[in-house]
Amino acid sequence: MIPRITIAQAGAHVGESVQIAGWLYNLRRSGKIAFPILRDGYGLMQCVAVKSALPEALFETIRNLTQESSIIVTGKIRADERAPGGFEMDVENLEVVQRVPESDPYPITPKDHGIEFLLEHRHLAIRGLRAHAILGIRHEVIKAVRDYFDSHGFTLVDTPIFTPAACEGTTTLFEVNYYEDNKAYLTQSGQLYNEATAMAFGKVYCFGPTFRAELSKTRRHLREFWMVEPEMAYATLEDVKRVAEEMLVFIVGRVLENRREELKRLERDVTRLEAIQAPFDRMTYDEAIEILHQKGSPIQWGDDFGGTDETLLTQDRQRPIMVDRFPASFKAFYFEPAADRPDVVLGVDVLAPEGYGEIVGGGQRIHDLDLLLQRIEQHKLPKEAFQWYIDLRKYGSVPHGGFGMGIERAVAWICGIEHIRETIAFPRTLYRWAP
Amino acid sequence: MIPRITIAQAGAHVGESVQIAGWLYNLRRSGKIAFPILRDGYGLMQCVAVKSALPEALFETIRNLTQESSIIVTGKIRADERAPGGFEMDVENLEVVQRVPESDPYPITPKDHGIEFLLEHRHLAIRGLRAHAILGIRHEVIKAVRDYFDSHGFTLVDTPIFTPAACEGTTTLFEVNYYEDNKAYLTQSGQLYNEATAMAFGKVYCFGPTFRAELSKTRRHLREFWMVEPEMAYATLEDVKRVAEEMLVFIVGRVLENRREELKRLERDVTRLEAIQAPFDRMTYDEAIEILHQKGSPIQWGDDFGGTDETLLTQDRQRPIMVDRFPASFKAFYFEPAADRPDVVLGVDVLAPEGYGEIVGGGQRIHDLDLLLQRIEQHKLPKEAFQWYIDLRKYGSVPHGGFGMGIERAVAWICGIEHIRETIAFPRTLYRWAP
Repeated sequence: MIPRITIAQAGAHVGESVQIAGWLYNLRRSGKIAFPILRDGYGLMQCVAVKSALPEALFETIRNLTQESSIIVTGKIRADERAPGGFEMDVENLEVVQRVPESDPYPITPKDHGIEFLLEHRHLAIRGLRAHAILGIRHEVIKAVRDYFDSHGFTLVDTPIFTPAACEGTTTLFEVNYYEDNKAYLTQSGQLYNEATAMAFGKVYCFGPTFRAELSKTRRHLREFWMVEPEMAYATLEDVKRVAEEMLVFIVGRVLENRREELKRLERDVTRLEAIQAPFDRMTYDEAIEILHQKGSPIQWGDDFGGTDETLLTQDRQRPIMVDRFPASFKAFYFEPAADRPDVVLGVDVLAPEGYGEIVGGGQRIHDLDLLLQRIEQHKLPKEAFQWYIDLRKYGSVPHGGFGMGIERAVAWICGIEHIRETIAFPRTLYRWAP
Repeated sequence: MIPRITIAQAGAHVGESVQIAGWLYNLRRSGKIAFPILRDGYGLMQCVAVKSALPEALFETIRNLTQESSIIVTGKIRADERAPGGFEMDVENLEVVQRVPESDPYPITPKDHGIEFLLEHRHLAIRGLRAHAILGIRHEVIKAVRDYFDSHGFTLVDTPIFTPAACEGTTTLFEVNYYEDNKAYLTQSGQLYNEATAMAFGKVYCFGPTFRAELSKTRRHLREFWMVEPEMAYATLEDVKRVAEEMLVFIVGRVLENRREELKRLERDVTRLEAIQAPFDRMTYDEAIEILHQKGSPIQWGDDFGGTDETLLTQDRQRPIMVDRFPASFKAFYFEPAADRPDVVLGVDVLAPEGYGEIVGGGQRIHDLDLLLQRIEQHKLPKEAFQWYIDLRKYGSVPHGGFGMGIERAVAWICGIEHIRETIAFPRTLYRWAP
């Protein structure tokens, strides 16, 4: 029996007759020869169908194939350096599973389509080479993230999606009627729960979808995005920085190791990725403000960085920057203040180079009960809803910290693409929640 | 400097002085010796504090430690076969990070608490040995699932949580105000999207939270649960069964390999797990009905199995059963009918032994355009909302199939526990969405 293989396995079958099931990606032809390019989800294979070697009806069928028709091709694999994947297939037989009719052709043609059209047809557009490369890298990034944490003593503990209260403000919450008239909210971050699970497991991470009902419509925002969030008991800001750095270097290394093909297809300058090595540049917020002033930014001490500031800070650097010790004024209630300066907190942002900006945000959390109670009051948070979180400071509180990394932003940076909507199969933006 | 280790690493440090940071799990003591048991998220360590070997104040501190106080213990590791983990630690020093006061003691004591109290205090209860074991096995199951698919040519493609329409009926949907007055629904299954991504990647899986606004309050239902769903292009029912079987054997094998300690703590009969080997028993729905009749069930042909039926079918078997070829009447619109019998569809359920019932459900999907259109009409589904799904049958349709496995049910079965609410850190049931 002829073995069924994927295009990725072609190299192990040179000189053999095999079967590959896929879809017609493209077709060139003349009167005597046709070159159907086959796509099977693992790669592209240029097939060669020679009229004189095939039954006449079969050659005509091949000559008249339409884009995205599903076909099963039988043929002999031949190494050919000129071919895209390094192999070609001499067609011996071809079965048409479903032929896309000329009367209703595949809507996405090689011509340029507008972005709205492509998002409307996202269920088909993901078959394209670019989407395929980006989503393949996304898979690799997610696998690398999990492998990193799984092999460094972290336990995956999924945190809930339905939450009774907001982690950071209520204006960007999606509300759900949970039971009768009781409201629940879709999680914006698993962090508060991570703080509970870290006290049970030492080191934990959660990794799931998070939701922000933001009204902003920028290239850096999705309403539904995936986030990985590690949290460590008995950890300080320095531990958080070390883990974030190590994890990022590991992820980029994995992508370089396993996804060269995809990076090439995206025309990514891989030297920019090869430069992502420890140690990252480290600076305090104060130092960052000084640099920004030298570069002409009007930013004032106490302001959060804008996109332009992040670009100014990173533009002449090869490696990510870790900025820490931020003004308490614009950071969430749970940040531990610096021991030597109560107006700054032990938060850290990791800014990616090339204008990608913040990809990681985290820090050390308050572990003192009285200070936490004070902050909850200052931030006018509902103490009752936070009672369980307060409990963590009553029963064996320890210094602890962690961070969050949005997967889509990390993938956009690694792929070198402009808009994060391309980094997820079915992006959910302000005006789009279909298909 | 004295190295900081976890309890899991003790074996590599026998005879050395090390530091372990954790929490007081328990304490036995007499006038001259105290045995604080330390918990650090990785295991338990019995420490031995001898009065004559320590400064008086320190020994008094140790003697008076309270449950769950956070402590950092320095001491020498000694192998001791009688100790729970095989090692003990002779205390040289002990730093109290935070002492839980007698006036407000840790609420979960060794006495029996009611389940409502424990769920109310779930943020603390997860520190307990039982919860720790179950959630550790959950971590292992999830890692095994991902490793299985990642190493078998599947691409992880996350499917959206916000969806414009329901996959299977609308009565159990959670509704969200997405943008202005537009509604979106929380996903019940990534399957329909998987069918799109499988046409792009060949073999895919999604793995994320899913939501059912069910009003049932049983030991097998959660309103928020995690599901893994593989989908394969160019696949038939037989492929689906083979992959489900292989995956389940792989997962159980991994748990047996890496989580013996946890299984023992849960008093799991591991011979039941060791028996989970291929091939699983296979039978058609028709054969299952016959067996059920022989066993006295009143079930009629055309009825779905109830819990009792699943128990009757599996009670005298060691391995899971795969039941296929179900009546079309109670299965979803997208199931491919059997070629030889249009009244049955190519669905398969995998039933776990010991009364755990369905842990996997899946099958082959309709790939013919006209048949799909007919089914959408018969099931009175909104054709407009399914247009993108219909597209998949117009542009290179191929036979395809997959399945879904609820992680919580699989973990409950593997752990041998009764209620799935214990298999997730923060269960969301009909009346509970906090903490």
